[in-house]
Amino acid sequence: MTGASFGSDNHARVHPDVLAAIAEADSGWATAYGDDAVTEKAVSLFRRDFGEHAEVFPVFNGTGANVVGLQALLRPWEAVVCTQTAHINVDECGAPERISGAKLVDVPTSDGKLTVEHLERAIWGIGDQHHVQARVVSLTETTELGTAYTVAEMRAIADWAHERGLYLHVDGARYANAAATLGVGLGELAAEGGIDVLSFGGTKNGAMLAEAVVVLRPELASSLPFLRKQSMQLTSKMRYVSAQLVALLEDGLWLRNASHANAMARRLAGALEGASGVEVSYPVQANAVFAVLDRAHIDDLQSRHTFYVWDEALDQVRWMTAWCTTEDDVDAFAADVLATTSR
Amino acid sequence: MTGASFGSDNHARVHPDVLAAIAEADSGWATAYGDDAVTEKAVSLFRRDFGEHAEVFPVFNGTGANVVGLQALLRPWEAVVCTQTAHINVDECGAPERISGAKLVDVPTSDGKLTVEHLERAIWGIGDQHHVQARVVSLTETTELGTAYTVAEMRAIADWAHERGLYLHVDGARYANAAATLGVGLGELAAEGGIDVLSFGGTKNGAMLAEAVVVLRPELASSLPFLRKQSMQLTSKMRYVSAQLVALLEDGLWLRNASHANAMARRLAGALEGASGVEVSYPVQANAVFAVLDRAHIDDLQSRHTFYVWDEALDQVRWMTAWCTTEDDVDAFAADVLATTSR
Amino acid sequence: MTGASFGSDNHARVHPDVLAAIAEADSGWATAYGDDAVTEKAVSLFRRDFGEHAEVFPVFNGTGANVVGLQALLRPWEAVVCTQTAHINVDECGAPERISGAKLVDVPTSDGKLTVEHLERAIWGIGDQHHVQARVVSLTETTELGTAYTVAEMRAIADWAHERGLYLHVDGARYANAAATLGVGLGELAAEGGIDVLSFGGTKNGAMLAEAVVVLRPELASSLPFLRKQSMQLTSKMRYVSAQLVALLEDGLWLRNASHANAMARRLAGALEGASGVEVSYPVQANAVFAVLDRAHIDDLQSRHTFYVWDEALDQVRWMTAWCTTEDDVDAFAADVLATTSR
Amino acid sequence: MTGASFGSDNHARVHPDVLAAIAEADSGWATAYGDDAVTEKAVSLFRRDFGEHAEVFPVFNGTGANVVGLQALLRPWEAVVCTQTAHINVDECGAPERISGAKLVDVPTSDGKLTVEHLERAIWGIGDQHHVQARVVSLTETTELGTAYTVAEMRAIADWAHERGLYLHVDGARYANAAATLGVGLGELAAEGGIDVLSFGGTKNGAMLAEAVVVLRPELASSLPFLRKQSMQLTSKMRYVSAQLVALLEDGLWLRNASHANAMARRLAGALEGASGVEVSYPVQANAVFAVLDRAHIDDLQSRHTFYVWDEALDQVRWMTAWCTTEDDVDAFAADVLATTSR
Repeated sequence: MTGASFGSDNHARVHPDVLAAIAEADSGWATAYGDDAVTEKAVSLFRRDFGEHAEVFPVFNGTGANVVGLQALLRPWEAVVCTQTAHINVDECGAPERISGAKLVDVPTSDGKLTVEHLERAIWGIGDQHHVQARVVSLTETTELGTAYTVAEMRAIADWAHERGLYLHVDGARYANAAATLGVGLGELAAEGGIDVLSFGGTKNGAMLAEAVVVLRPELASSLPFLRKQSMQLTSKMRYVSAQLVALLEDGLWLRNASHANAMARRLAGALEGASGVEVSYPVQANAVFAVLDRAHIDDLQSRHTFYVWDEALDQVRWMTAWCTTEDDVDAFAADVLATTSR
Repeated sequence: MTGASFGSDNHARVHPDVLAAIAEADSGWATAYGDDAVTEKAVSLFRRDFGEHAEVFPVFNGTGANVVGLQALLRPWEAVVCTQTAHINVDECGAPERISGAKLVDVPTSDGKLTVEHLERAIWGIGDQHHVQARVVSLTETTELGTAYTVAEMRAIADWAHERGLYLHVDGARYANAAATLGVGLGELAAEGGIDVLSFGGTKNGAMLAEAVVVLRPELASSLPFLRKQSMQLTSKMRYVSAQLVALLEDGLWLRNASHANAMARRLAGALEGASGVEVSYPVQANAVFAVLDRAHIDDLQSRHTFYVWDEALDQVRWMTAWCTTEDDVDAFAADVLATTSR
Repeated sequence: MTGASFGSDNHARVHPDVLAAIAEADSGWATAYGDDAVTEKAVSLFRRDFGEHAEVFPVFNGTGANVVGLQALLRPWEAVVCTQTAHINVDECGAPERISGAKLVDVPTSDGKLTVEHLERAIWGIGDQHHVQARVVSLTETTELGTAYTVAEMRAIADWAHERGLYLHVDGARYANAAATLGVGLGELAAEGGIDVLSFGGTKNGAMLAEAVVVLRPELASSLPFLRKQSMQLTSKMRYVSAQLVALLEDGLWLRNASHANAMARRLAGALEGASGVEVSYPVQANAVFAVLDRAHIDDLQSRHTFYVWDEALDQVRWMTAWCTTEDDVDAFAADVLATTSR
Repeated sequence: MTGASFGSDNHARVHPDVLAAIAEADSGWATAYGDDAVTEKAVSLFRRDFGEHAEVFPVFNGTGANVVGLQALLRPWEAVVCTQTAHINVDECGAPERISGAKLVDVPTSDGKLTVEHLERAIWGIGDQHHVQARVVSLTETTELGTAYTVAEMRAIADWAHERGLYLHVDGARYANAAATLGVGLGELAAEGGIDVLSFGGTKNGAMLAEAVVVLRPELASSLPFLRKQSMQLTSKMRYVSAQLVALLEDGLWLRNASHANAMARRLAGALEGASGVEVSYPVQANAVFAVLDRAHIDDLQSRHTFYVWDEALDQVRWMTAWCTTEDDVDAFAADVLATTSR
């Protein structure tokens, strides 16, 4: 690939501080499966940020984090309510249903965000043996459409759920981007938002491969060690995954990376504002810009740049920025978009 | 942990060449999920060694490799025959049954190795709708007891299985140790041994976290991309996993690492030979020494060294060596064992 | 319960001919699990009606028939497209997902009937490892809303599916009602409609408990014996289930029962036609009448009659008729509805 | 089939009182899914016999009863300890693993009966995330080998299990035969034996198809309605299944049927006592006789009688008796066995 990718924050390389942390962890012998000093440090940093009650389980990837965390909340006849665009619904090859056995009840939204109104319509048949029993509301923060729940929006959903004995699960593959854009701390968002179980994403935030299931109700955590192992998400040489999480958390690298990525998306959207031929689809609240273009312009741009069509029927594209996207990358890309779409 | 660990080859650090390969892969942007140059190189190296027909799917860990590979061979009413000591049977928290739905039929063995005689007794009820249908024979090479199937032993099982329409799956978490101890190539062992699907292990061989499902019957490979994703074993920034596999395969690092680890185990067993108070349990054919000691001696040694009791009822311990175990490590440890057990 | 139930065709008793067939089967000893003369006769009657290529597997209940049949068509990363109101989607407590592992992709409809247009929007991401792979279109005939696909409507869907390598599964819990209302034979509807696997319903058609998975592509049938057993749907004393199917098929009892039930629903709808205060929701094509009433009228009627509210938000009720609903039952009920709603 | 079958108690016809009870239930309309008077009566009879705290869930068949009951006790990383000959282990096509996700840990026995010694060896790794966590001990009473646990033997296992936080599940496909041979009441055996969840078998005891999951710790019962439905074991016209259970329980038909079947097996074993050429394998404590014969004699007898070879390697056959096996049936069969084996 030549030039910056606007295809995915997964196309980014690893932040040098993360690589340095891996190298630092690579010293001598260490017990496997998490009983090591680096993992201990990672856990203590999570507890510093999320509270001493947090239980932390490093895993390999985002699908793994979601599926492990959801299983801790679900019995097999229970259901998860999520958006139609949720990663767990469309991008995990059915892993949530297959592995947990539970059903996903998906609701269409205009901007990738659930509301209490959605839940009131989607959840019914409680107590009826013929019907799956809704137990979990799963949000993505920031959403798959580049929007972010405010703390108050999330809390409204959490309160509604908790009053009914449901749990709030958050797919936080881009949780750092959310905290950054909202201007709140990692733990503040979790506590004020009412999160029960969080998939904390490191990979899109500058790590190599590092996520964590963060359980914020300790009474839910006892099954996690077994679920993580059985779900094939327990790494033997865990120090190398934990080191990445340490690097992100220790001195705020997560925030610098996320803030920069968010700023690059805003810069791109700003450059395109008012342009005819490019209609930005949703509020740009994190590190993604969705836009509708003429199909011919999309094809033309794709011949020079890496990005994906999000919705073939709408001629809608997604442009992602990452911790390593530069202002020059954005400016050059925006200029080409403007030039192309004005032809 | 101070001093060398004889607890597990998972306690070892990462080989410097592997770290260097990771750093080398960390350059610029790259497409995610395997569509990158490093993964392409890894695949081509596997094909150089295993044949052009090999289909290769990098994954995170050994349990993941086993479960993904087995699923490609199994329908849910089918069964896997394995040893009672098989990793899939006792060390994967039930993941094979849970994720594939299939039953494991385990047979006791004296040395961790299956034979045709075992299979003849274990497999019955074919065609009977009440009974699971044996479809896969799964071997571990080298075994969990530090022994290795010869090529001829493996081939006898493969031929028996293939004649009956069964597949041969090999858990090769220590496949490199097997090829090294047998003095055969990686592909030679697979081809001559009759392997259909192999879990190729990198992590215990000096990698950080890198395994691969190697499918040697290409007609079985079409489901792998979906099974890998659904089983939460698809990494987004795959170049960093693939780089590790490249480092091991490119110029024979796998063989140097495995040969050294094997030699260290032989050195340890040799030093203990004839000693009263230490009875080595199985032929030392790879990087593990199993021995029976007095319980008091075990406790005493564990106060100074890291290793595990394998069988509490037998007072049997397992001592593992790794790519980075030194001759000095072995000699010092052996001397302590001899001194302790002669008290 | 006093008086006729309009709550469900499952509230009906068993037809006397079915009881007589059970008594007739109760003679001497018979081999278990289907290797008996009554089951042989049932299979031959299905083949008389559906063609000699049909493979027939009696099971206990409709959920069982659906889940066993779907499993024969699905690998775990595949998906089923169905309506939002489908029984498999809302009334089987998540059994399809839990047992098959596959995802259901549900689409909203106005009348319970899928169309090719629905499928074209719902099916995407084919070949993409991140996304479940649509493999089965599942229709309900007659639908959960009392409507029926015409042969041509079903065939259009079948053709679209088959051209893309998908299968057509039909939940035929009320398949007899469909054939009756369409005026076609059981096998004619299957053959002309392009059905691959059918859940044939006996219980709602006058049986005690008897359904069958009818596989119309014999190459799909080999897994059925194992799937039926593993899915806990294989009865030991099968002659007693088969006898019920024989009674329905042998001399057209299925058609007499279904035609009568259908006629009773039409009679009820006819009696209510033009009444203010009762708005019939869908075309009455089988044995169900859906209607919207004032909530107070619903409550009043429920104090004297057995029926269910279908949609609480819409104040929509469902009135079902069965083989044993009499004209007097209908007339008395209709009169009470008219009297109540005109108050 | 001509003549009495010694192949299985599933080959027997239905007891006339059971058919009469079905006919009696066939009156008018009744609410589906268990909310009917016949089911209410069945539940009250179970409570009369097992205690008011018993929770009762009628199901279709024995595999269904076992799998539904086990699921109520298991989380997916947990394990069931059972005998190698257990029905759940070898005769349910892997349904327990597939549907519950849990692993079965099977132990070899000499007579089909578990002991505390077996459990002490089979259960290990508690608290270790790599290993499945034993949670359930599952016994079959009477066993698959025609033996019966005494109340004291069962209680010893229950006490051992309960002290460790494990549950006792009993596969009681022939529970009536056990109570009859032990001379205890149905509830007495459950209470004194320490059973937590029982699969109560009706089908082999003279019913058509009727089993029940009996939960004796009410706090475990809340998931049962959902598990039964999701496991496809909820019948719509439940009154017809419940009627069969009523017939068996109401006035002791279960005991008369089981006592007779047991007596017929004892009569058969008695007639063969001392004969050369027929070696009875296990104590005849219920309605099965296992014996070892010359293969030629087996083949000869099978040309005139219906029974199965149990173990091909041992030339061991199983002869089952049922509620409708007559003394003449036994005497004629025994005479033929004696004549054949003395040739």
